[in-house]
Amino acid sequence: MAKDFTTREEDYSKWYNDIVKKADLAENSAVRGCMVIKPYGYAIWENMQAALDKMFKDTGHVNAYFPLFIPKSFLCKEADHVEGFAKECAVITHYRLKNAPNGGVMVDPEAKLEEELIVRPTSETIIWDTYKNWIQSYRDLPILCNQWANVVRWEMRTRLFLRTAEFLWQEGHTAHATREEALIEAEKMLNVYADFAENFMAMPVLTGVKSPNERFAGAEDTYCIEALMQDGKALQAGTSHFLGQNFAKAFDVKFLNKENQLDYVWATSWGVSTRLVGALIMSHSDDHGLVLPPKLAPLQVVIIPIYKTEEQLQAIREKVTSLSAELKSKNISVKFDDDDAKRSGWKFNEYELKGVPVRIAIGPRDLENNQVEIARRDTLEKHTASFDGLANHIETLLTDIQQNIFNKALKFREENTRKADTWEEFVDILDNKGGFILAHWDGTTETEELIKEKTKATIRVIPFDGEKEEGKCILTGKASARRVVFARAY
Amino acid sequence: MAKDFTTREEDYSKWYNDIVKKADLAENSAVRGCMVIKPYGYAIWENMQAALDKMFKDTGHVNAYFPLFIPKSFLCKEADHVEGFAKECAVITHYRLKNAPNGGVMVDPEAKLEEELIVRPTSETIIWDTYKNWIQSYRDLPILCNQWANVVRWEMRTRLFLRTAEFLWQEGHTAHATREEALIEAEKMLNVYADFAENFMAMPVLTGVKSPNERFAGAEDTYCIEALMQDGKALQAGTSHFLGQNFAKAFDVKFLNKENQLDYVWATSWGVSTRLVGALIMSHSDDHGLVLPPKLAPLQVVIIPIYKTEEQLQAIREKVTSLSAELKSKNISVKFDDDDAKRSGWKFNEYELKGVPVRIAIGPRDLENNQVEIARRDTLEKHTASFDGLANHIETLLTDIQQNIFNKALKFREENTRKADTWEEFVDILDNKGGFILAHWDGTTETEELIKEKTKATIRVIPFDGEKEEGKCILTGKASARRVVFARAY
Repeated sequence: MAKDFTTREEDYSKWYNDIVKKADLAENSAVRGCMVIKPYGYAIWENMQAALDKMFKDTGHVNAYFPLFIPKSFLCKEADHVEGFAKECAVITHYRLKNAPNGGVMVDPEAKLEEELIVRPTSETIIWDTYKNWIQSYRDLPILCNQWANVVRWEMRTRLFLRTAEFLWQEGHTAHATREEALIEAEKMLNVYADFAENFMAMPVLTGVKSPNERFAGAEDTYCIEALMQDGKALQAGTSHFLGQNFAKAFDVKFLNKENQLDYVWATSWGVSTRLVGALIMSHSDDHGLVLPPKLAPLQVVIIPIYKTEEQLQAIREKVTSLSAELKSKNISVKFDDDDAKRSGWKFNEYELKGVPVRIAIGPRDLENNQVEIARRDTLEKHTASFDGLANHIETLLTDIQQNIFNKALKFREENTRKADTWEEFVDILDNKGGFILAHWDGTTETEELIKEKTKATIRVIPFDGEKEEGKCILTGKASARRVVFARAY
Repeated sequence: MAKDFTTREEDYSKWYNDIVKKADLAENSAVRGCMVIKPYGYAIWENMQAALDKMFKDTGHVNAYFPLFIPKSFLCKEADHVEGFAKECAVITHYRLKNAPNGGVMVDPEAKLEEELIVRPTSETIIWDTYKNWIQSYRDLPILCNQWANVVRWEMRTRLFLRTAEFLWQEGHTAHATREEALIEAEKMLNVYADFAENFMAMPVLTGVKSPNERFAGAEDTYCIEALMQDGKALQAGTSHFLGQNFAKAFDVKFLNKENQLDYVWATSWGVSTRLVGALIMSHSDDHGLVLPPKLAPLQVVIIPIYKTEEQLQAIREKVTSLSAELKSKNISVKFDDDDAKRSGWKFNEYELKGVPVRIAIGPRDLENNQVEIARRDTLEKHTASFDGLANHIETLLTDIQQNIFNKALKFREENTRKADTWEEFVDILDNKGGFILAHWDGTTETEELIKEKTKATIRVIPFDGEKEEGKCILTGKASARRVVFARAY
């Protein structure tokens, strides 16, 4: 069916922008690099938030809120951290405007801050400065806080959801008495992310460790979930960091352990952002528009009446009332769209574009036959179903769709994960096929950077569950103990 | 009972600070004027958010998200608006730091923004700049958006929750085809706030209109809910603004109406903030600590075992398991605190301080008698209750407590609302009693400002439901058609 937007085949990047725009998800704002998240896009994010927030609380975490601003000097306390973030931050230098002589307003030079403030790009520094006052002894540990917040990283090239100057996210910041406990926490939260990605977003992910080069600025180890988009590029979907004692040392956060000795506190941090909305779109959507997994769809079922007369509409409305009630009682969101100003063909297109998982059409003939026509968004297939047991049928169908979307994405990833044993193979796959490439690497940052320079491919992840396999680095030929996952990435 | 904090009688202001600190609600951060909202304080805010968000959605609103930053020039487009907000805003002038020659980092002078950005103090300007692109015809209206966000107003004197440089809030921004529809919306949302204040916060509020002097910068009318704190000072708890066509004109937002004519769009905006947490504390809490209405309490019921031996604890634990499950099935939050490291007396104090509405104590004797001891936080009264039907008893008790807290606050307000017919009476009440004062006013801003200058009292609200009553202005003696509500305020 023809839609007035680009297909994936034609131009994947343009296709993505078209979907974001036409499905009313987000748009660029008047402020360079900042997006407006429109109600339909925000509703997807709200569903993500609700599911994640419950998972965080079920694993013992609580929410809190820390300041938007960070004193400039805080950034400098952790050496790697300032290197990673100072280059791209919004700096507040004044706290007042005043009337300008020529009309309008101007910065009031008398209201200059003694120390500049940075809009948080991430909150490790301000939070560890706070934790310093919360922690005296092992009895105060662990601290398991999460924060839902906006952050700003001054990006030069931005793309809606995927990379914006301001974005929304959650950042967990935990404090522990031992190294082991912090390691367990970092891994636990990575598993929460993987669980969320696979079971809510229907997006299969690889889990593992980042190479030192791709580590978070200030971390000892960065764990990540890594997904494959339909254009064969990888997307980092979430990270969980084992911070060691780096921030505790930077902010002098010590505690009295059970042995009555002073020690530095161990830390983790972990986050996912509105970038996940971009990942969701690029994982499942097609040339007809969005495809949303039922568990995150703002609207799961739409019912569209097909009628000519007001009497027919009324008969359909009556028939539908109890179905809607029954679906709602099963926590299935449903809308009966009887807007008379729009043709049913227009509605079909619109809900397809918006990725509503199940569309039900009912006309006078259907009423006579005690049936409806059901279209599922994932396969675009239609079938008829009896009104008897219809709510149960739809409930099952939604579960099927959720599973099918995941299976399809998993199949795509499997078909696009390849081994490369030589440099030629490696380059050939990158240039002609894309996807994840399992290849040997000699373990050095130099080689990793050389590969990136030559091919734009990076090490996405060193998988937790990768087998040991002796081999030779695809670039240098030096010995390697295992394959790592390369790809070009967002 | 002695607590190591100030009583209300001794020093109300210090009492407030002590409660906020000792009940672990919030603290000042390293950034001047910005607070850290600690997990327990944030949990109260989350409960407020959940209730309000549902009310907004039930009245047809959707959430969206707009940029944190506002171009300086946007502020100037609405004349009153810039007057109201330019004096107190965080200004971003640069987008990068660089390494300083002497170590540390400094602002990179080469990364100066062409136009400064303001951290939003409120979002009318950026939102109306966005709505311009969303609205062409009456078919695009109404737009009923809400945003949960952080905002910054550079306050010189700050107090935790009540007045901070950064605070969390929601801001609704709606666009309508007619003046009437916008007026209805502004009043509807004020009623939502009043409903929330009274039925969730158990805080009685007056509803009405602000005098022109106290209006939102850019509004044609500001409606408000106004509450009375225990020290006799008023607190503005929420506002809803009828903005007329001011922002539509400032941002040139026109639409084609049903008569096919171009007209400016009508607007409202409305907001409540984390200030409500401060209002909640000051409305109900006592010299023993927080008193929380059950509907907003993060923890509603705590069960504390009284035991000497591990066997006794085990017997209590078994008995309590099904009670906890039954309470949870009624959506009542409950915690069994069997922390062996803390004495039960310490726990009693702690949960009293934290305002947990119902405390249940169970010892071996109670088990024998198939009963428990129940203490309610609002009255500090204790009674015994049988295990038979205990969950139902607690459910009823929580409803009672919610109602009793409201009744108590209402009684306080009634006892502290007085009429003043002369200037002497007015000043006497202000200086010796406080509370709301119903008095005649000649309707001019000059008089209002003179009264404020002489007494620090302001017109809090011109009540919707006030009777017409001819009288003479307490200051000028000029004719007045009705009494308005004066008070000293937070």
